[in-house]
Formats: sequence, structure tokens, C-alpha cells
Amino acid sequence: MKKPDWVIDKERAKRAAAAETIWLFGLHAVRDALMNPRRVRLRLLVTKNAADKLADAIAASGMVPEIEDARVFSAPLAPDSVHQGAALEVKPLDWGRFEEVCVSGKGAPLVVLLDRVTDPHNVGAILRSAEVFGARAVIAPRHHSAPETGALAKTASGALERQPYLRVMNLADAMEALKRMGYVLLGLDGEAGLTLAEGLARAGKRPVAIVLGAEGPGLREKTRETCDALVRVPFLGEFGSLNVSNAAAVALYAATAGR
Amino acid sequence: MKKPDWVIDKERAKRAAAAETIWLFGLHAVRDALMNPRRVRLRLLVTKNAADKLADAIAASGMVPEIEDARVFSAPLAPDSVHQGAALEVKPLDWGRFEEVCVSGKGAPLVVLLDRVTDPHNVGAILRSAEVFGARAVIAPRHHSAPETGALAKTASGALERQPYLRVMNLADAMEALKRMGYVLLGLDGEAGLTLAEGLARAGKRPVAIVLGAEGPGLREKTRETCDALVRVPFLGEFGSLNVSNAAAVALYAATAGR
Repeated sequence: MKKPDWVIDKERAKRAAAAETIWLFGLHAVRDALMNPRRVRLRLLVTKNAADKLADAIAASGMVPEIEDARVFSAPLAPDSVHQGAALEVKPLDWGRFEEVCVSGKGAPLVVLLDRVTDPHNVGAILRSAEVFGARAVIAPRHHSAPETGALAKTASGALERQPYLRVMNLADAMEALKRMGYVLLGLDGEAGLTLAEGLARAGKRPVAIVLGAEGPGLREKTRETCDALVRVPFLGEFGSLNVSNAAAVALYAATAGR
Repeated sequence: MKKPDWVIDKERAKRAAAAETIWLFGLHAVRDALMNPRRVRLRLLVTKNAADKLADAIAASGMVPEIEDARVFSAPLAPDSVHQGAALEVKPLDWGRFEEVCVSGKGAPLVVLLDRVTDPHNVGAILRSAEVFGARAVIAPRHHSAPETGALAKTASGALERQPYLRVMNLADAMEALKRMGYVLLGLDGEAGLTLAEGLARAGKRPVAIVLGAEGPGLREKTRETCDALVRVPFLGEFGSLNVSNAAAVALYAATAGR
């Protein structure tokens, strides 16, 4: 009996996900991934020079590196990738169940939600800030957001290995789940009546989720409606706007130091 | 009688500075520069399509555009510049005297000093935050910092036209001048004993200068010594560090909303 189409589709998607790998590159990113016990590693391509520099991390990982000629470095990277003679093929990190990541850990729970932020430099900087300010997770929809790539790993400067970055099927569903877990959802919006500080004061001791949209379009209608409150960063200047990663850093600082 | 060498050198440097021009590119950056009455404009190269989109700004500027063929756009830009068919040759902005820029204006005086921050994306984002939080100026040494370029203008998203970006010969001299003007100089340093909030509380109602170093090297010895106090952004996570533009945004927010 022939399998129905939807079963075939589902199996195909599952196989594709299982086959998905990422090439990390650059001494820093490769070292961090070699040292990360959660990281599933497949292949390590290094020049002799890079192998020397990474000797301790390679030994700790137990991997057998493939030594490459610097002039014909064969890792499948974008041409402008500053690989420094080191490339590592890995699987995306598995951070475990959404609910578990968002409730466990030390201190007051705090998460960041990104509504279609696609620029890897911005998402990389946000992962760094999230780690620094102790956020449980950065949550983004599986589609229309920056995927876990070598470029993202490089701008995240190690944070990709340590800071949970959860990609969900549907952002509004994730927001509803956070609400059921007791989170107060504060969406950043330049036109909001409440200030960030006022919104955080209202949230009191409850867990807080900071919701940010892409520069330009901002939060989508559905995302905006699902927030508990919209808040703005108070501007002194008449013009201008914050870069999205800078807005995230300000909100995370206010949510931790300011309360 | 022959001129002495030093006079010749000085005249040459003056001519070089007078000859210095920048090519701005991209619809947004070109529009902002066309609308800026302080901007000295030299040549405008646009495709027919871009000329239509910029029609109002071109009319307001009084410039006569040179219409270019999109396939052979001849502006001298880096190959990967996303020019969108618009390039404008301009002179660097003249913001006037250092002391005047740093004392005039509304609200509590606030400036940002950058010690060898060379990445144009970071400086562009910092200019945006400086504008948003009403900083008088972003001050950087003439050498070893991101010059005013088309790439910087693009990431600054309009802020380069409105936010004073002062390049000084010597950062320590500028810091001493700010001290004489009553500024309290707070240098960001991850190892500092004081927190940012504590440093700002000590500064009280006095004008504040936030001093940031490049990622990695941080503040130079001389810069560190010239600060009134070193302060740190409190970290909850064990690892990681903030991107320099994110650290600047946090400090500017704390210096305005937090006091």
C-alpha cells in the first residue's frame, strides 16, 4: 500500500532536518564549538597553523582534524568568510524543550522574542547581550529570521554556543505559552504610550519577555496584539531610531539592573 | 626666498583636507544628505529611476543631477556597495568648535568618546543611539577610528547628517578639555569595581562623558588614567561580553532615563 502524500512530506522534512549541518569558521567560533560538550561535531578542516593554535581545543574535543593547504582551503564557505584556516561542520544545537528552557535557571526569568529579525549581525549581537544579562532564551520563528550559520556564530562571538536560541514554528503560539508560564510580554514600539521603565514597573517581580520587531516594519499586527503591553524607549532627540540590537540591550539592561 | 619645509608640509596638509571628499550612496543616505542644509555637496550621480524616487530632495537641494545608466554606474564606490542607483559626493561635515558643540544645546550635557573604535557598523549604530539619547557629540581620534564614509553613513541610517561626530587630534587632550568644562568622564571597563549606575549616581547632575574602547583591547592605558572613574555594566551571565555599540546604548540609556 502506498504511503499518503502527507506522510511522505513529513518524513522528507524530518530527514532534511536530520541532514541539516552548519559550517562554523574562524578560530574563535571553531574553538568555542570544539569546547562545547553539547555540540555535535562532524568534520574539522584546519591548516597546519590553525591546528597549532587550536591544539588544546582539538585535543579536548577528541576530533581528528583534516589538515588543509591554506592556498586551497576546501571548506564550503562563502567566498568572503574570514575563516583563519579553521572550519568545523556541526549540527544545530538542541536546547531541549521550550518550556523547560524558559522556566529553569537562576534568577528572575527573562526571555527575548524576535519578530522576523533577519540580519545575522543584529541577531549575533542580541545573543551576546542575552547571555550577558542572563536571559533564558532568545526565541524567533523558524522562518523569516536569521538561521544558525557561521556568519551568525562569528558575530555572536561565542554566545551561540552558550545562549539558547530557540526557533519556533509560530511566534504567537510561543507567546501564549509564555503567558501561561506567568510571563509578562512587553513589546517595544516607538509609538507606545508607556515607557520601558513604566512597563517593567507594572510587571513587578513577574518573569518578563521583551518582544522586538525588525527595523522598519516593527512588530507584526498579530505579535503586537498578543503582547501584554507596548512600551517605548524614551527618546530625547527629535529624529532617529535605535538599531534593533541596541534596543534589545537597553531593554535587557532595564529589565535586570533597573528593577 | 624658499619656504621652510614645515610651512610647505602644513600647506600640503591643509590642501589635502580641503580636497577630502566622501561618496555617500544608497537612497536613504543620499536623501538625508540632500536635505541637510549643513552639507556641502559636489556631484550627484543617479539613475533615472533613483532620480524619480529622490525628485523632491533633489529639487530642495537645488542640485543638477548627472543621470547615469544603471548598467554602467560610474561613481567610484567599493564593488559591494548597495548604491541603489544613487551616489553623492560631499565634503565631511563641519560641526564647528569642539567646546561649542559640547556645551550648547538642550538638557543635561552628555557626550560619547570612542577610543579606537574602527568598525563602521559599530560607529554607525553608536551615532544612532547618541542622537536618540540626545548626546551632544560622539568624539573620536582622527586616526585609528572609523572615518566618515559612505558605509558609515549607511549604517548610521541618517544620524551622520544630524549627530555631531567630532574627530580630534588627541583623545586625552579632548578629555582634559571636557574636564575643564565640568564633565565627569566615566570609562566602561568590565573589570571596574563601580557599576555604571553607581558611577552615574556619583556624577549627580554634572555633565557626563561615556568613554568606550574597542572590543578586545578595551581602553588604552592613557585613556583609562584620564577618566574620572571606571564603571562596569553588571553582568548576570558568567561568560560573554557586550558588543561595543550595545554597551554604548546601555550607558546612554542609563545616563538619561536612569538619573
